Amino acid sequence: MTYCIALRLDSGILFASDSRTNAGVDHVATFGKMKVFEHPNERVMVVLSSGNLSITQSVINILEQHRHADQGGPTIWSVSSMYDVACLVGEALREVQRRDGPHLAAGNIDASASLLVGGQIKGEDPRLFNIYPQGNFIEASADTLYFQLGEGKYGKPVLDRVITTATNPVDAIKCVLVSFDSTIRSNISVGLPIDVMWYPRDSLRAGVHKRIVEGDAYFSMLRQAWGTGLRRVFGELGNPDWMS
Amino acid sequence: MTYCIALRLDSGILFASDSRTNAGVDHVATFGKMKVFEHPNERVMVVLSSGNLSITQSVINILEQHRHADQGGPTIWSVSSMYDVACLVGEALREVQRRDGPHLAAGNIDASASLLVGGQIKGEDPRLFNIYPQGNFIEASADTLYFQLGEGKYGKPVLDRVITTATNPVDAIKCVLVSFDSTIRSNISVGLPIDVMWYPRDSLRAGVHKRIVEGDAYFSMLRQAWGTGLRRVFGELGNPDWMS
Repeated sequence: MTYCIALRLDSGILFASDSRTNAGVDHVATFGKMKVFEHPNERVMVVLSSGNLSITQSVINILEQHRHADQGGPTIWSVSSMYDVACLVGEALREVQRRDGPHLAAGNIDASASLLVGGQIKGEDPRLFNIYPQGNFIEASADTLYFQLGEGKYGKPVLDRVITTATNPVDAIKCVLVSFDSTIRSNISVGLPIDVMWYPRDSLRAGVHKRIVEGDAYFSMLRQAWGTGLRRVFGELGNPDWMS
Repeated sequence: MTYCIALRLDSGILFASDSRTNAGVDHVATFGKMKVFEHPNERVMVVLSSGNLSITQSVINILEQHRHADQGGPTIWSVSSMYDVACLVGEALREVQRRDGPHLAAGNIDASASLLVGGQIKGEDPRLFNIYPQGNFIEASADTLYFQLGEGKYGKPVLDRVITTATNPVDAIKCVLVSFDSTIRSNISVGLPIDVMWYPRDSLRAGVHKRIVEGDAYFSMLRQAWGTGLRRVFGELGNPDWMS
């Protein structure tokens, strides 16, 4: 399985993904389930993917080829809004499903895939979209400011308690890492490394990215401090009077 | 949906269930998705149920009729082990599925149901079983000391951090209520009231039970103290040096 999350905050968009099932190709600006498309000072687009890896890799490849081949139609490098980018990602997903879906179905293999697409194109605010397996999508709003893919339930309670659109990026990163820790502890299918990328609003450049690997000192400290703190809070809770 | 949980601790078994989808019949010793069968000083058996309510109610009715009608076969009141009780619950589930399953399938209605069955029969230790929709089952052990039904993922991280077989019943109840709170906050399909029952090992009597309803003072205090404490711990976490 997978755990990916993207949060659209007032100050930018935070992306994070695990990489346990990653059998992916490593090349510049691709890490784990996170793919960054950047045209500095003009547009930054980040795609997080979950589901069948052959499907999501093909989607990424189709989007990448937009850079090199002018097929006459709109591309993620030419369209003027993130909405249009989301449409193109959905179309790429449908194209791969048309090509590969029936063959996978014949082998009883789950061909479904979901993607999160966020970023900013000059002239627009940062935007974030959740692309469903059928290629349709929804956009994050002030009410629903984050999307998760895969094993999202374990790590959702801490997000729901801490994150608002006004949360600063450092707190958001800490909260997302705690959310990953909760998920990793309770579900063996999600694991390190974790890729984190912070896109600062209006920067129009790929922001800080960090790959957190096994033994990472900060993540180890965070896990331990959170666990200790949680047990301390738990120990301070009053007892119910109906239990003698 | 549903959230039910049962924990087999050294000192007894803790049962808890929500009741949001409960359309059930209220009568003595039945509350929400929790059904208690008691023969004082001889046996106590508790069933938590999730899934199709018409199926689980029929299962409970079949088990109840064991008390009134001697059909010659073994009943939950006559068998000498909780293993045999689990077999009878599985058989009752299969009987209802045989009767109703094809009709529900014809209407594209999900007929699946799962149950947790725990308790103690004189001469045995307390035991806890998880009955799958097909009527087969597994037993809790020192390694896997609790089972969940329904929306278990949101509330699992806190259990995994706090609960061991040596946890005392008051701490276990607090932890289970925090687990319910996390679930209720993140998933609208789980809601109050929560039924809680603590069965003390070797008591052979239905133990303390409590129905926690909307506005319950203790639960409200717990939710608030937990949320405040969590945010305090969060605020104390160090910052990553890779984010300036």
